[in-house]
Amino acid sequence: MANKIRVGILGYGNLGRGVELALRQNPDMELKAFFTRRDPKTLKTLSSEVPVYHVDDAVNMKDDIDVMILCGGSATDLPKQSPEYAKYFNIVDSFDTHAKIPEHFAACDASAQESGKVALISVGWDPGMFSLQRLLGNCILPDGKDYTFWGKGVSQGHSDAIRRIDGVLDAKQYTVPVEDALKKVRAGENPELTTRDKHTRECYVVAKEGADLEKIRQEIVTMPNYFADYDTTVNFITKEELDRDHKGIPHGGFVMRSGVTGVNGETKEMIEYSLKLGSNPEFTSSVIVCYARAAYRMNKEGMKGCKTVFDVPPVYLSPKSAEELRKTLL
Amino acid sequence: MANKIRVGILGYGNLGRGVELALRQNPDMELKAFFTRRDPKTLKTLSSEVPVYHVDDAVNMKDDIDVMILCGGSATDLPKQSPEYAKYFNIVDSFDTHAKIPEHFAACDASAQESGKVALISVGWDPGMFSLQRLLGNCILPDGKDYTFWGKGVSQGHSDAIRRIDGVLDAKQYTVPVEDALKKVRAGENPELTTRDKHTRECYVVAKEGADLEKIRQEIVTMPNYFADYDTTVNFITKEELDRDHKGIPHGGFVMRSGVTGVNGETKEMIEYSLKLGSNPEFTSSVIVCYARAAYRMNKEGMKGCKTVFDVPPVYLSPKSAEELRKTLL
Repeated sequence: MANKIRVGILGYGNLGRGVELALRQNPDMELKAFFTRRDPKTLKTLSSEVPVYHVDDAVNMKDDIDVMILCGGSATDLPKQSPEYAKYFNIVDSFDTHAKIPEHFAACDASAQESGKVALISVGWDPGMFSLQRLLGNCILPDGKDYTFWGKGVSQGHSDAIRRIDGVLDAKQYTVPVEDALKKVRAGENPELTTRDKHTRECYVVAKEGADLEKIRQEIVTMPNYFADYDTTVNFITKEELDRDHKGIPHGGFVMRSGVTGVNGETKEMIEYSLKLGSNPEFTSSVIVCYARAAYRMNKEGMKGCKTVFDVPPVYLSPKSAEELRKTLL
Repeated sequence: MANKIRVGILGYGNLGRGVELALRQNPDMELKAFFTRRDPKTLKTLSSEVPVYHVDDAVNMKDDIDVMILCGGSATDLPKQSPEYAKYFNIVDSFDTHAKIPEHFAACDASAQESGKVALISVGWDPGMFSLQRLLGNCILPDGKDYTFWGKGVSQGHSDAIRRIDGVLDAKQYTVPVEDALKKVRAGENPELTTRDKHTRECYVVAKEGADLEKIRQEIVTMPNYFADYDTTVNFITKEELDRDHKGIPHGGFVMRSGVTGVNGETKEMIEYSLKLGSNPEFTSSVIVCYARAAYRMNKEGMKGCKTVFDVPPVYLSPKSAEELRKTLL
């Protein structure tokens, strides 16, 4: 362990904190510094021995950081930060706006091709592990159908949308896969499923005193894009109940590939991958950290440019030697 | 599709037939020829338009075949064939004697390094997809425990062992995962499981007329390595029942990684991958065929030597462009 991989964390929210913790489980990696847009003196991390710098100082540390993990959001942070920091560092991000991935890829690739660094984007579980399972399923069973279900888990975006409604003090929203739909897919029935067939939405809402509960409920269940296409249940609870019973950020889901083989497609084959996550950001961070190892190694072997989980040979994810992996895990 | 990947099949048992069928589902690949140790004239394939040659003629076709898929057995065929044919071809095999993989790797690597070809070994579902999932699980959740369960499915080796018993006409053996053990693992209990805790063995046996059934049963359940360490049930049935109810070769199984994240490992995370296969050889062949595509491409890009599923960037498995994959599956 003479040469540990030196990692920087840029952005310290749930994800940054998850990366900080995940690095402790990987003794071949070392957390070198935090970078923040806030006043560094005000940032309370869990690792008091690790220095905190302002983001403006990051570039000065380009020779001290092997991989910079960008822990900002996909809406406004990463579209700017990823191409910018790929000029100086190998980077990993968790960009998750599926529709804008091609655009984000192009921007990061231009930057990383020029700097000679690796920019590994959209790492986590979806996009990330779920994408990888979808790819494997499609390649193994070309005659088949893909199904992705999410949950049961907290959707941050939907919870935020409820909180913005007039009269709402706080809220938490769970996305729940419909058990009957899962069963049909598992049985190889290859059902055509609408949005409503696949998931329900459960809302736990704390209303302000004197608020019109029925009006809030109506506003939630009819909200376009977010709730209107789903069977949504709204439960009003107290702030104490919310804090006590809904403080975690669990998530998870299922990727299934239902396909056929044989002379006339007479043989059914089913692949299922599922995650049950106690903490969405901690698991996402754990995926990011092993892909940070891969980004560093791939760059060390001369690779550069933008990459995704599709481009990473699995052997680079592990701290163990290829020989040991073949012996113990193959 | 001007330049299809030209594939040869060497060996025509269940696996060779599976590869033959899987290739039909992959229009960017073309079955160029079969090679057999039997008299080519006697081989009845499902593809009368594809020529059948004797294995001795394979080397003459080294410029006509992009990837040779070796469909022999791991006990005696592949240890010889894989290093031999890697002298002339990119090869893919499904070598599945886990303990001897390092040895097989070394032999194939020596041969393929010298020829400049790619030898992709131990491809299928275990070793293969299950190995890949074990690796991913270990890398994402370093603090965790691995569980692999097999079944419900037919074990060819165990069925053969029963057939060799005096008084047995025919037999089929199913390996069945113990539901209670699966439940405990899924619940994150991280149980220590003995061989007996994890799987049971169900045997369907056709006895010869007048055979001592109790003696056969005793011989099965006490057979070392194969049955003695398991709870084994023996059912005597007629030949007609065996042929009617047990003619398929289903299989499957589960790979689970149960791990923890957080400040003190307080958060539970669970990854589960499962397969439910109507046909073990047809699914194995489907995996092999997409890895054959990867072997060809990796070699075309200058890679050589022995590889396993751990070394293959997933993007090489698909006939689609990296750009399209990012757009549709990431």
